[in-house]
Amino acid sequence: MGEYKRVGILGGGQLAMMLCEAASRLGVSSKVLAPDANCPAKRTADMAVQADYEDLQAVQEFAADCDVVTFEFENVPVRSLFSLQEANHIVAPGAKILAIVQDRLTEKQFLQDNQIPLARFARIDKVSDLGPAMEAVGLPAVLKTRHFGYDGKGQTWIHEEKKAEAAFDLIHHHPAVLEEVVPFVREVSVIAACNYKGGFVAFPVTENVHEAGILRQSSIPANCSVEVAETAIAITRKIIDALGYVGVLAVEFFETGNGKLLVNEIAPRVHNSGHWTRGGACPDQFEMHIRAVLAMDMPQPKCASSAKMQNLIGADILQAEELQNAGWQVCDYGKSRKQPGRKMGHAVKWQ
Amino acid sequence: MGEYKRVGILGGGQLAMMLCEAASRLGVSSKVLAPDANCPAKRTADMAVQADYEDLQAVQEFAADCDVVTFEFENVPVRSLFSLQEANHIVAPGAKILAIVQDRLTEKQFLQDNQIPLARFARIDKVSDLGPAMEAVGLPAVLKTRHFGYDGKGQTWIHEEKKAEAAFDLIHHHPAVLEEVVPFVREVSVIAACNYKGGFVAFPVTENVHEAGILRQSSIPANCSVEVAETAIAITRKIIDALGYVGVLAVEFFETGNGKLLVNEIAPRVHNSGHWTRGGACPDQFEMHIRAVLAMDMPQPKCASSAKMQNLIGADILQAEELQNAGWQVCDYGKSRKQPGRKMGHAVKWQ
Repeated sequence: MGEYKRVGILGGGQLAMMLCEAASRLGVSSKVLAPDANCPAKRTADMAVQADYEDLQAVQEFAADCDVVTFEFENVPVRSLFSLQEANHIVAPGAKILAIVQDRLTEKQFLQDNQIPLARFARIDKVSDLGPAMEAVGLPAVLKTRHFGYDGKGQTWIHEEKKAEAAFDLIHHHPAVLEEVVPFVREVSVIAACNYKGGFVAFPVTENVHEAGILRQSSIPANCSVEVAETAIAITRKIIDALGYVGVLAVEFFETGNGKLLVNEIAPRVHNSGHWTRGGACPDQFEMHIRAVLAMDMPQPKCASSAKMQNLIGADILQAEELQNAGWQVCDYGKSRKQPGRKMGHAVKWQ
Repeated sequence: MGEYKRVGILGGGQLAMMLCEAASRLGVSSKVLAPDANCPAKRTADMAVQADYEDLQAVQEFAADCDVVTFEFENVPVRSLFSLQEANHIVAPGAKILAIVQDRLTEKQFLQDNQIPLARFARIDKVSDLGPAMEAVGLPAVLKTRHFGYDGKGQTWIHEEKKAEAAFDLIHHHPAVLEEVVPFVREVSVIAACNYKGGFVAFPVTENVHEAGILRQSSIPANCSVEVAETAIAITRKIIDALGYVGVLAVEFFETGNGKLLVNEIAPRVHNSGHWTRGGACPDQFEMHIRAVLAMDMPQPKCASSAKMQNLIGADILQAEELQNAGWQVCDYGKSRKQPGRKMGHAVKWQ
C-alpha cells in the first residue's frame, strides 16, 4: 500500500467530524485530538487521541505522524500551536491568526490596521473606561469579553449610560470591548479558502439569521446586490492576503441600509454558515479546507443554485425525522447531552 | 432523538462502502449484509451483518428494520429479493430487473422487445447451435456465458468457425450468448436515476476505456457529439421507463463509426464508470441512489466541467501515494487480497 497523507485536527466536535468525513473522501487519513473520549468526530476519524489541548507533550506526539495539523475551533491554546511550529510541524492556518482572533481587541485592531471596514469599538479594561467608550461608540452598544466568547456567550447590551457598570459586572469585569450596535438590513458571510501558493476560492455569499447570538439559518443566494456580494468577497480576500492565510476562513458581515458592509468577525476555520455546502457544493467547505492545508488542488466549487441550512438547537433535534421526511438532509452530531442552546445538528435542503 | 430512515444494502464491496458513506451524509442510517466479515463496506456502514445472500431467514431479519432494501451487485440471488417483496418489504430496484439482467439472454431479449438498439446476438445451448449462430451474428464474435459474468470473466472470442467448439469448451458448455463484435469509435455510459414518481435525472455522458474486459478509465465530457449524448440519455430513459425502475441504473453503449449507439449492457446499480461523480458531482451517484430509493428529493447534479477516473487494479494501488501527490483524489477499497485484475481502488481528478 502507498502511504497516504494524514491530517491532524485539534478538536473533536461536529466541525472535526465533517472534516474527517471529507478527508476520507479524499483518501486522506485523519486523526483528531480532543479531551472528550466520546466526541462527535470519533465516528468519522481514522484515529482519535484523548488528551488536553494544553498537554504539549501529547500534542507533539499527536503531530508526529501528521503531514499537517489544523484545528476546528478558535480556543485551542495558541501556545500548543506555537510549540508545534517551533518543532517544525506544519500548522495551517498558522498560530498567528489564532493569536489574533482569540482576542476580540487584537482582531479588531488587525482589521482596522488593514483598512477593513468595521463598526466602532473601544477597549474596556476598567470601570472608568466605560464613559469615554460610550462617548466614542454611542448607545446602544454591546459589551463583549475579549476572550472565549462564542454563540452569544460573554456579551451583553448596554442601552443606557447608567446601566453600563451593571453590564460590566455581568461579564465579571473581564477585559472587554464595547461595540457599536449597527442597524443592519442583513447579515451575510463569506467562506473562502487559500492555499500555500495564494490560490483563492470563495463560496457564494451566504445570508444568515441569528437569534440570541446563535446562528439559526443560512441560505444562498443572499438577497444582497451583486456589488455587495463582490465587495464581501474582495474584503475577505484582503483579509486572507494580509494574513498569508492557508485553509478555510469565514468572515461575517453586517450590511447596512446604504449597502455598506462592516466586518462583524472572522473565524479561522470551517464555519456553521457554510454547512449548506455539505451536499450543496462540491467540494464542500470541509473538503476545501483539507485540500488547502494539504496543498492539494482547490477546484472552483460547483454549487447549488439555492440552498438553505437550519441549525437544530437543543430540542430541535427531535424534529429530525419530520425534517427528513420533508426532504431535508439531516446531520445529527450525535451529542449525548441535550441542553438548551446547544447545537445538536443541522438540516440542509438545496436544489 | 428522531428516528432516521434506514437503508439496507445487500453486498459489502466498494460500491456498498460508498453508498453507506453517502447515506451517512444524508443522515440516513445504513446496514450491509455480506458473507465476508471484513468487507470494505464495514468501514462506513452503521451496521454490518455477516450472512449468505441465500440465507432467506437472515435476509428477512436484516430487512425487518430497514425502510428500503437495495443491492450493490447483480448476482444477489433473485429468490432472496422476491422473498423480501412477498413479505411486503420495499426493494429498490425491484427483483424483476435483477431477474432480467442475471441472464444475458433475457437482458438482450428485454432490450430487443423494447426497441432498444443493440448488437446482433444468438442463443447457444448446445454445440449444434454454434453454426446457425455464427451465420446470424457473423465473425469475429464473442461467446459469453449467460450467467455470472463480470469484468470480462466467462467470455471468449471466436475468430474462425473451426475454433467455435473449442471456445464453447472453454466456457464449459454453459448456456451462452454469441454476440456480434461491433467495431466502435468509443464506449460511453449513462448513469441515471429514477424515483417512485417517475422523476428522472442523468449525469453527463461518460466516456470509458476498457482493457481485457475491465474498465480502466472514465472521463467527462465524452468526446461524442451533443446528438449522440442526447440519444444515449433518451435510450437510458426509455429503459428506465420500460422497467418502472427506481434507483440508479447504468447503461453502457458502443458508439459506431456512423454515430449510432448500441447498448452493450445495463447494470441495475451504481456503476464504476460513475465513480468520477464522487467529488466531481453533487449529489454523486451514490447519494443519488440513496435519495431515489428512499423517496427523497433528487436534485439535478451540479457537475465538474471535466473529470477523470482511473481504476487502480491489482498492483496499481501501490501508486496511490504518487497519485495523491499529483492531485488525484484516491479511494482505497481497503481490500486485503491483492490479486491481478482485482479492483483495489480508484483515483479521481476533476475541475
